[in-house]
Amino acid sequence: MFGSTFGTMFKITTWGESHGKGLGVVVDGCPAGLSLTEEDIQVYLNRRKPGQSQYTTQRQESDRVEILSGVFEGKTTGTSISLIVYNQGQRSSDYGEIAAYYRPGHADLNFDTKYGFRDYRGGGRSSGRETIGRVAAGAIACKILNQLGISFSTYTLSIGPVTIDRSKFDDSFIRRNPLYMPDEDAAAKAAAYLDECMQEKNSAGGVIECVIHGVPAGVGDPVFEKLNANLGKAILSIGAVKGFELGDGFSVAAATGLSNNDGYHMGTDGKPEKITNHSGGITGGISDGCDIIFRAAVKPTPSIAASQQTVNRDGENITIQIKGRHDPVIVPRAVVVVEAMAALTVTDMLFASMTSQMEGIVEYFKHL
Amino acid sequence: MFGSTFGTMFKITTWGESHGKGLGVVVDGCPAGLSLTEEDIQVYLNRRKPGQSQYTTQRQESDRVEILSGVFEGKTTGTSISLIVYNQGQRSSDYGEIAAYYRPGHADLNFDTKYGFRDYRGGGRSSGRETIGRVAAGAIACKILNQLGISFSTYTLSIGPVTIDRSKFDDSFIRRNPLYMPDEDAAAKAAAYLDECMQEKNSAGGVIECVIHGVPAGVGDPVFEKLNANLGKAILSIGAVKGFELGDGFSVAAATGLSNNDGYHMGTDGKPEKITNHSGGITGGISDGCDIIFRAAVKPTPSIAASQQTVNRDGENITIQIKGRHDPVIVPRAVVVVEAMAALTVTDMLFASMTSQMEGIVEYFKHL
Amino acid sequence: MFGSTFGTMFKITTWGESHGKGLGVVVDGCPAGLSLTEEDIQVYLNRRKPGQSQYTTQRQESDRVEILSGVFEGKTTGTSISLIVYNQGQRSSDYGEIAAYYRPGHADLNFDTKYGFRDYRGGGRSSGRETIGRVAAGAIACKILNQLGISFSTYTLSIGPVTIDRSKFDDSFIRRNPLYMPDEDAAAKAAAYLDECMQEKNSAGGVIECVIHGVPAGVGDPVFEKLNANLGKAILSIGAVKGFELGDGFSVAAATGLSNNDGYHMGTDGKPEKITNHSGGITGGISDGCDIIFRAAVKPTPSIAASQQTVNRDGENITIQIKGRHDPVIVPRAVVVVEAMAALTVTDMLFASMTSQMEGIVEYFKHL
Amino acid sequence: MFGSTFGTMFKITTWGESHGKGLGVVVDGCPAGLSLTEEDIQVYLNRRKPGQSQYTTQRQESDRVEILSGVFEGKTTGTSISLIVYNQGQRSSDYGEIAAYYRPGHADLNFDTKYGFRDYRGGGRSSGRETIGRVAAGAIACKILNQLGISFSTYTLSIGPVTIDRSKFDDSFIRRNPLYMPDEDAAAKAAAYLDECMQEKNSAGGVIECVIHGVPAGVGDPVFEKLNANLGKAILSIGAVKGFELGDGFSVAAATGLSNNDGYHMGTDGKPEKITNHSGGITGGISDGCDIIFRAAVKPTPSIAASQQTVNRDGENITIQIKGRHDPVIVPRAVVVVEAMAALTVTDMLFASMTSQMEGIVEYFKHL
Repeated sequence: MFGSTFGTMFKITTWGESHGKGLGVVVDGCPAGLSLTEEDIQVYLNRRKPGQSQYTTQRQESDRVEILSGVFEGKTTGTSISLIVYNQGQRSSDYGEIAAYYRPGHADLNFDTKYGFRDYRGGGRSSGRETIGRVAAGAIACKILNQLGISFSTYTLSIGPVTIDRSKFDDSFIRRNPLYMPDEDAAAKAAAYLDECMQEKNSAGGVIECVIHGVPAGVGDPVFEKLNANLGKAILSIGAVKGFELGDGFSVAAATGLSNNDGYHMGTDGKPEKITNHSGGITGGISDGCDIIFRAAVKPTPSIAASQQTVNRDGENITIQIKGRHDPVIVPRAVVVVEAMAALTVTDMLFASMTSQMEGIVEYFKHL
Repeated sequence: MFGSTFGTMFKITTWGESHGKGLGVVVDGCPAGLSLTEEDIQVYLNRRKPGQSQYTTQRQESDRVEILSGVFEGKTTGTSISLIVYNQGQRSSDYGEIAAYYRPGHADLNFDTKYGFRDYRGGGRSSGRETIGRVAAGAIACKILNQLGISFSTYTLSIGPVTIDRSKFDDSFIRRNPLYMPDEDAAAKAAAYLDECMQEKNSAGGVIECVIHGVPAGVGDPVFEKLNANLGKAILSIGAVKGFELGDGFSVAAATGLSNNDGYHMGTDGKPEKITNHSGGITGGISDGCDIIFRAAVKPTPSIAASQQTVNRDGENITIQIKGRHDPVIVPRAVVVVEAMAALTVTDMLFASMTSQMEGIVEYFKHL
Repeated sequence: MFGSTFGTMFKITTWGESHGKGLGVVVDGCPAGLSLTEEDIQVYLNRRKPGQSQYTTQRQESDRVEILSGVFEGKTTGTSISLIVYNQGQRSSDYGEIAAYYRPGHADLNFDTKYGFRDYRGGGRSSGRETIGRVAAGAIACKILNQLGISFSTYTLSIGPVTIDRSKFDDSFIRRNPLYMPDEDAAAKAAAYLDECMQEKNSAGGVIECVIHGVPAGVGDPVFEKLNANLGKAILSIGAVKGFELGDGFSVAAATGLSNNDGYHMGTDGKPEKITNHSGGITGGISDGCDIIFRAAVKPTPSIAASQQTVNRDGENITIQIKGRHDPVIVPRAVVVVEAMAALTVTDMLFASMTSQMEGIVEYFKHL
Repeated sequence: MFGSTFGTMFKITTWGESHGKGLGVVVDGCPAGLSLTEEDIQVYLNRRKPGQSQYTTQRQESDRVEILSGVFEGKTTGTSISLIVYNQGQRSSDYGEIAAYYRPGHADLNFDTKYGFRDYRGGGRSSGRETIGRVAAGAIACKILNQLGISFSTYTLSIGPVTIDRSKFDDSFIRRNPLYMPDEDAAAKAAAYLDECMQEKNSAGGVIECVIHGVPAGVGDPVFEKLNANLGKAILSIGAVKGFELGDGFSVAAATGLSNNDGYHMGTDGKPEKITNHSGGITGGISDGCDIIFRAAVKPTPSIAASQQTVNRDGENITIQIKGRHDPVIVPRAVVVVEAMAALTVTDMLFASMTSQMEGIVEYFKHL
């Protein structure tokens, strides 16, 4: 509860508004002795930075991260790490108008109802800029996980009606196109679709897919703290996400036990191995050592220039066209946010899994 | 973490295995002064009880709940409420065989990997019987919510390829058919489909939909503790659920801003009102006063009598046919589990919303 | 919050009232593979059982514990462990009278104010019997800690004006006298003092001291989750405890830096060693490998037969003499409760300390 | 766990080291609509600022707080409030020497053991400067509580052997003397004692007392989340505190039931009233409406100029004299820290108490 903290053993607390002094995050529970520089974090933030193509807002946001605490002589100290990104070039004047009415698809009215008023400048705390703290913290989680052999492949699966062709999947292409799609043809079609949307003053949605390689078997707890339940919460807490599915996801509804069950055979390493991975790497809430695969449905950017019906604070029905610089699609910039939230979740639950067996605990303290 | 507790202000802790002495739940944070009888809880448990039709296991489980603490002279005392359901008629002998191998689609291997061994009797803690604690606690949450004008309509949306026709939606039919479908024709077709599955020793999946009426605007917190994020976690923590979506869900991916945004107009009560409800009653993580609508994808029962490939504990590839009494579909019995988890989440976050405004707090303590 | 759960990684949830059906606890986060029998727990419960001497209530309470879940074939499974003690011989009739008035020194009025009414039978949830759940769970924590080389010595330091002479300290005498004092002479004097109290229909307080041997250095976190802060909370949550102090405790107020600082010299094992232990084994919230020593001040039993002034529910000033069977001193029976709470706290924080260093984490997962 | 976060419903997360870029705190769960300026916070920070008398370090620390988020147009928005104090004039050169050895009475060695190394500059995260975040957040809690009629009187009860004479208690004198004592004569004697300590290159300890006026009855939960247990944890988490006691505290050990019980009579307002307040305003973990009174034992400043034995990182026994500017006593500057921690705890538990009764909840939502 009280929304700005995520995680138990690897815990982050974010703060900041779109047009305030800055945004930041405090990371607590990061183990000591991890090499960490501002550049490690910056590369993740750059992946969500706007202004990199015609499909993202043309705002200039340098979004440079600064480490304020928790790192000494290049290494994490084990105490809380504070990261800050100062806001620059946020022109509040752009937003004077939206103070007066409720934007469809935004949380404006909900904030007014819940809190009695709102910081109307660029959405305040409900702005997409809120994700800066998530991504900065996620970069640290990724660095920890990398040292344990865990890595991520996260990309745009679809934009509007355009979905990738899995037979053309090219991991190396993901970072080479502004839409973060792993299929060159699909990326071209999606770009064309977005051009159309922009001409119509409209916007597009899409689906993000994330594959996590190398999570050891045994991460996640039965019952309420299933790894998939926590991944789901993490991903569904991202502003524009309306759906989450693991492995075969919603298509299991029409499947049968025979088609959906993952059988086993003995692997070449003498261990049982799943023949298929319909489950997406998690069964009973616990990772099984296979790739973890999940998807997130992202809604179309709500801020559009086309005419929309709404009401103003004086209680009048009005028609608006939202001005300003807005992404025609949120999906590409949300890719790194999804990856960050997944990394935070896996780190947290991986740490928790260290006390699953008495034997492992005895062994750990024997070596101390 | 440490999986058996859910919630912050309305907190439940469950325990118990399929073939142990019993199962139960401790409910903490229940306000004092709520009238509560065992019968209030029993009616919810009865909705998940097996043996009520040919589409659920024919095991006889009386599943009578007993209140052990927290209720005095018919009212909750404000202290922790302990509920227990003793196991009866659990024949461990049925399960001797499955101790020796790993059932596809089950968490058997994951438990062995994580914990070093497992309670193999009927799945132990990962059995569907684990949901008894959820449903018993959920019944209390529902009773609280009802007093605040909040109610639930939860039903089977689809089974296998059969989906309800929304134009034939009949709320009153839900409790009158063993599949909990709100459309008589669809229920008949789904029953036929299940008959087919059973003849093929196979099983079916489906989708459950839940509509929550009457949640006041302002419930849920921005950023990580969004109401939809917590609902998602709650629902995804149910054993067989592989996907969660809110409002238009995954279909937003192909929508546009114009088609997906919910515009506003002034309502007859002089308050702004959403013209549509694509968002499913929550935007920015905060309820807006409209119906909250979400869906859960439920996988086919993994225990099937058809032949499946797996390995045994001796590391041999084997073929098995799972014996015993198993539901050909989990969906109908999971309907009340979904409702229970939703009720627990809404209660928790509704309580948390009481401190959103300084004015409301001052007012509350003035009346004390 | 919502009082019945304690701990993060080793988490317990208690329930039950003095005169309800029983009392119990759910233990979550217990590692798998720990041998555990009901007898392991019973020996701890027996230490708090009444009726063992003239200095405890003569109620006959068999207080037999039963394991309901989480243990299979003699070993913990890693899932939640449910323990129950059924109430027997609780005669509610004894307590009809106290429903009508507020007992001085008890929480009767506070419960009525907070909750609107109360379970008046024997104090309900605020009865000393509430500690049964703590002790049962603490027994499991102790068993875990013992396997890691950690042990407890907990005893009565003083009763009323009688304090032990540390030069006569005899650890083996603790369990051989009903007052759990480690000094035979002091025990005799304290017994005489208690006889006097009983003749005067009065009661006595005292101090409990706990020494924890073998906690490795590095347990506890800086800032809010200091090991001593959590020990303090654990101990102060026991009903009758009014004070907590670590090491030299309140006497540091009159000490000087020179007299209070623990200097270091090199130990025979080639490691730095504290010359003294004024700090009680914890500095900066982190254990240093020395004995952890703390004390708890326990108030006199509030239920006394002497005349006291109070008011009844009709708002009249009245004079009462509390009938029934009450301990003239709580201290001896609280000794095992203090030990249990300390064990729960140490287990929880010991587990948390496993992620302090990146190196240790990498090492752990390498061995997986 | 993971030490930098405190509270559940009013939650703070602190960060920062003595000689890093700055220190700060994120406050989450602050209700919307509270007027808040930097000056509101600054007045609390000024009470812990050094350099105000000869009894505190002569370092010049301006310690100006800046609000980075969560406040819009002078009011809290309901979202997370980020506060920062930049470090100035921290000369790391002063501390080069202490990198090489372990200071007695400090956590130097414990940090090295726990984390593998430490930020040795001025104690890093274990410095007294860590309390800046606590005090800044506490100022907000105090402002909330003041609006609910709750206020604090916190002062130095004793320094070394000098204790105040309660018959000379003068609340107005507290802020008029650098030792924050409420008794002019005692303050003079304590000052003389401190002069003596300084001449001997030694330091003094003391006791802080805190009285909280106006907490309504019914705050705090039975069992583990007693108000006193949380106050104890809050206060014991302050670096130099070695003991905590409520009401009559440790003196209850020698009291009797008759002398320690607080009887009741009917008050002039027609409500039951305690005749005495030995309990310190809390029984059964729940506030009773009387003043809450507790005390904290503060150890002597460990950094002293007198010769002390210790070891260096090369494993040699050495003798040191600690240079630099250190307070001869921590107590006066810790007064506001104690008050801040108490305010944070009371705010958190007061909010939690709003859901104690079903009736109050129904009433609250009726007014929404």
